[in-house]
Amino acid sequence: MHLPAPVSKIAKRYLPILDWGSRYNRDTLTSDLVAAVIVTIMLIPQSLAYALLAGLPPEMGLYASILPLVAYAIFGTSRALAVGPVAVVSLMTAAAVGNIADQGSIGYIAAAITLAFMSGLFLLLLGLFRLGFLANFLSHPVIAGFITASGLIIATSQLKHILGIKAEGNSLISLLLSLGQNFDQTNVITLLIGASALAFLFWVRKGLKPLLLATGMRPGLAAVLSRVGPVAAVALSTLATWGWALQERGVAIVGQVPQGLPPLTLPSLDPDLWGQLAMSAVLTSIIGFVESVSVAQTLAAKKRQRIVPDQELIGLGASNIAAAFSGGYPVTGGFARSVVNFDAGAETPAAGAFTAVGILLAALLLTPLLFFLPKAVLAATIIVAVLSLVDLSILSRTWSYSRIDFAAVAATMLLTLGMGVEIGVSVGVGLSIGLFLYKTSRPHVAEVGLVPGTQHFRNIHRHKVLTQPSLLSIRIDESLYFANAAYLQDLILNRVACEQPIRDVVLMCSAVNEIDMSALEALEEINRRLGEENIRLHLSEVKGPVMDRLQRSHFLQELTGEVFLAQYDAYRKLAGQQVTAA
Amino acid sequence: MHLPAPVSKIAKRYLPILDWGSRYNRDTLTSDLVAAVIVTIMLIPQSLAYALLAGLPPEMGLYASILPLVAYAIFGTSRALAVGPVAVVSLMTAAAVGNIADQGSIGYIAAAITLAFMSGLFLLLLGLFRLGFLANFLSHPVIAGFITASGLIIATSQLKHILGIKAEGNSLISLLLSLGQNFDQTNVITLLIGASALAFLFWVRKGLKPLLLATGMRPGLAAVLSRVGPVAAVALSTLATWGWALQERGVAIVGQVPQGLPPLTLPSLDPDLWGQLAMSAVLTSIIGFVESVSVAQTLAAKKRQRIVPDQELIGLGASNIAAAFSGGYPVTGGFARSVVNFDAGAETPAAGAFTAVGILLAALLLTPLLFFLPKAVLAATIIVAVLSLVDLSILSRTWSYSRIDFAAVAATMLLTLGMGVEIGVSVGVGLSIGLFLYKTSRPHVAEVGLVPGTQHFRNIHRHKVLTQPSLLSIRIDESLYFANAAYLQDLILNRVACEQPIRDVVLMCSAVNEIDMSALEALEEINRRLGEENIRLHLSEVKGPVMDRLQRSHFLQELTGEVFLAQYDAYRKLAGQQVTAA
Repeated sequence: MHLPAPVSKIAKRYLPILDWGSRYNRDTLTSDLVAAVIVTIMLIPQSLAYALLAGLPPEMGLYASILPLVAYAIFGTSRALAVGPVAVVSLMTAAAVGNIADQGSIGYIAAAITLAFMSGLFLLLLGLFRLGFLANFLSHPVIAGFITASGLIIATSQLKHILGIKAEGNSLISLLLSLGQNFDQTNVITLLIGASALAFLFWVRKGLKPLLLATGMRPGLAAVLSRVGPVAAVALSTLATWGWALQERGVAIVGQVPQGLPPLTLPSLDPDLWGQLAMSAVLTSIIGFVESVSVAQTLAAKKRQRIVPDQELIGLGASNIAAAFSGGYPVTGGFARSVVNFDAGAETPAAGAFTAVGILLAALLLTPLLFFLPKAVLAATIIVAVLSLVDLSILSRTWSYSRIDFAAVAATMLLTLGMGVEIGVSVGVGLSIGLFLYKTSRPHVAEVGLVPGTQHFRNIHRHKVLTQPSLLSIRIDESLYFANAAYLQDLILNRVACEQPIRDVVLMCSAVNEIDMSALEALEEINRRLGEENIRLHLSEVKGPVMDRLQRSHFLQELTGEVFLAQYDAYRKLAGQQVTAA
Repeated sequence: MHLPAPVSKIAKRYLPILDWGSRYNRDTLTSDLVAAVIVTIMLIPQSLAYALLAGLPPEMGLYASILPLVAYAIFGTSRALAVGPVAVVSLMTAAAVGNIADQGSIGYIAAAITLAFMSGLFLLLLGLFRLGFLANFLSHPVIAGFITASGLIIATSQLKHILGIKAEGNSLISLLLSLGQNFDQTNVITLLIGASALAFLFWVRKGLKPLLLATGMRPGLAAVLSRVGPVAAVALSTLATWGWALQERGVAIVGQVPQGLPPLTLPSLDPDLWGQLAMSAVLTSIIGFVESVSVAQTLAAKKRQRIVPDQELIGLGASNIAAAFSGGYPVTGGFARSVVNFDAGAETPAAGAFTAVGILLAALLLTPLLFFLPKAVLAATIIVAVLSLVDLSILSRTWSYSRIDFAAVAATMLLTLGMGVEIGVSVGVGLSIGLFLYKTSRPHVAEVGLVPGTQHFRNIHRHKVLTQPSLLSIRIDESLYFANAAYLQDLILNRVACEQPIRDVVLMCSAVNEIDMSALEALEEINRRLGEENIRLHLSEVKGPVMDRLQRSHFLQELTGEVFLAQYDAYRKLAGQQVTAA
């Protein structure tokens, strides 16, 4: 295909498949096929389980693992990312859709499909307008806290399936209360199945790999084999349930899963529904994107590949739109399955497309075999998967490093656990930004002196430095802008009011990256007020971009003192002068 | 009165009257009384006019100028601030209350009273929790743009009274359209009165003072006299209307104004109403507070006095609560009347209390005289007053200084003019903060070299400096935090990937005021990735507080290079080493 150069350039940018597809060969095909088989085996129980977590029929999990993977293979930039239903996004879907309709109703399913469409559209727009940087406003600790709290909620929400009882709630507390109320109705056989599955899956995760390694197996293969443990649990428990007819003794089973191609579904365009889902769509998309990009970046770094975040938005947007039209629900790149895909040797996004074919075959052929699968086993696979997301060490790490980060993490976790995912993550983001703004509104300011034998200036309270009583050198450790302009003005005027002999004030601007209009007005006021006291105001080490801007104002003409290139020049001239005069 | 020391200290903090009251004497009394008489004369027509602007009965303007002034005299810290109804807050009241009830209805009045109570409560809480710094998040240019746009809207809204027609709308466009529709119903006599009043008031403002000065009058007295011009306009036009019975020829007059003490009113506690007014109460309070504090600060600075912003919140909060219980509506410190108060020699807040007595006497005795006062004259006093608020130069000043400030101002002005005050100011604040965050998320980064003959390092693109090919020195001009952590990582890794001979990277941290947990993780990743390429990472000029925190993490142990006190030390060691090795 020969396209005119600009068209071809645009096409290559928005269709990464044109790039890697042109270099596709037999070797990459083999690698991708092997990876696809392994990921398919892993993804079948996961898809069913996460659909269950989202409160949706199990087949929707399978459908969400077919076309979305193909869409990502065309538009995505990561070579190893495996897209599909994931735990946190499934939980967020349940929270969002649960506000609108009851689980099991047609409205619930329609809302989940619409949520996928809205998320997809939102991600696509962010990508086309290159707004991927917005995701940077989620601080790492806030994300870590949110994921940990979500993992705890998810694990708790699955306990009802392990116990064979009913329980409801979006927060940890409401879930625990609900579990406590119905605890006496526990079905012992369900509990036995669930507990064995849990024990088996934990053993597979922790104990199987060392065992396989001890037999001399390649580490990569051992890692992959230990990831497909859930399939064994699924197969064994299904056989046992079928053999002993355990469903007649109160064990909840998956039951009829429709056999066939994914249906063509259409998202609702009802403006009321859109209004109700808008905020959820934004949150789900952003959390999904952040998770996915961080996985993709980690894996790309290992092979010195690059991913393009704005194109990733387009890839994930296309995936979610594909999900909406093929009976799925919101999807994103998953951590565990992407690692398996990578370890199993996936070379290109084609592995994802082959996985889609595998899941399609499962939907066509295997669903009757899932009839007797106990829900408790699916719940066990979820619990084992999400507990690996739980990392409470983020609390101690942030506590020792920065109380402000700690406050943001703790608030995010507590609110997520206590009030649900949407409030938790919204407050977390708001708090991160609010605390950052608060810090910048009360900047650190140091009085500095000359480190003897150098031309370097440091804080007089931390270092042994030379100073001169008539010269006050102040280093401001923050950009000057509207939120701290008034603070700066008070601080300098109060400082000067304390001491009499001061004749010169030098503001050392090495850390001032910006002086906005409000701060400029504050500086003008400081200059004027100091002038009334016959104190001259000087600046030193003003950076290029800041100086450019000051030169466009009247400030430099009004300034009673000078602008020095280096603080040392200011010290030499001003302190020296005084010494001579004295 | 002898109080135990801690009680007395707390009482003095929250009751500034105890401080200045104890030093009150005959001289200050005389000064305050003179100022109070002049401010009273000025305030009578203003109170009536601003009540009209707020869509409220004129007597509510008088009531809002009695008890609130006494409350401020007890709790406020400014010696010269004159509190009462002001133009912008009246406009915001009309916008807020107009959403809830029709002008002239009981519901409208009740909502205005409730808005005053909610504003008062909000201000009081901000003050008690010492959150006055929140007002700093309004950038000066955004406030200037908002005030200018509000002034234009207010002036336009008063044209209907000058023309004697009906017109409605919260935005400039809707007002102009409405005026255009009814323009043919203009009442010529009303227009004559309005236009003469406008011409007279403009002349009083611009021409009277020079004239008085030419007669040898003291400048202070001339300034004060030229401020009470509106009273003459009020008296003359009232006499003319009464003499020629102009009200029978279609001139709208103020009519019956109840004579007597302010009534006891109670704010509504209806949660629905509170929900509808909450956002408006917050906006009105903050705008009112910011205006008031800036006036108070300007006047205090002239006499080397200090105001305490958190106590100002308490003072204004008490004023608004007093307004709510005495038939008033939201009040704040006004610019023009405070300047008059100051120029007329007010020494303490007692001048405000005396003004309150003056207005009380007016409410008791003078209201029958206001019956024939034409509304067109009140409208003219408003127009002349608010046009002094309009300052379009903020657009050109911000344009030449900073495009980001310009964008915030222009958006605030356009939205205020086009969509009303509440949307305008909300978007202005959001935009200021959003643009600041955006800037900090893509920080300026400079490659630096040694300025010959010094120990000072500057941008290689702006200065003639010495560099060494194996040593890359990068100065990051921003605090490192979650919003720019990913950007920094990409930037450094891409920069290093371009050039081969680099063996050492020094991050010069003189402008890094903070490294949060997300940025720490990014630095760890940079260190690891550079390590894989056998490039060492060093830091220089790390500030005290930042270093303290890094020492609590593992980063310094993992760092492949060193931390240098000064960039010069790094250069001497690393560049020198290479030179020897070469």
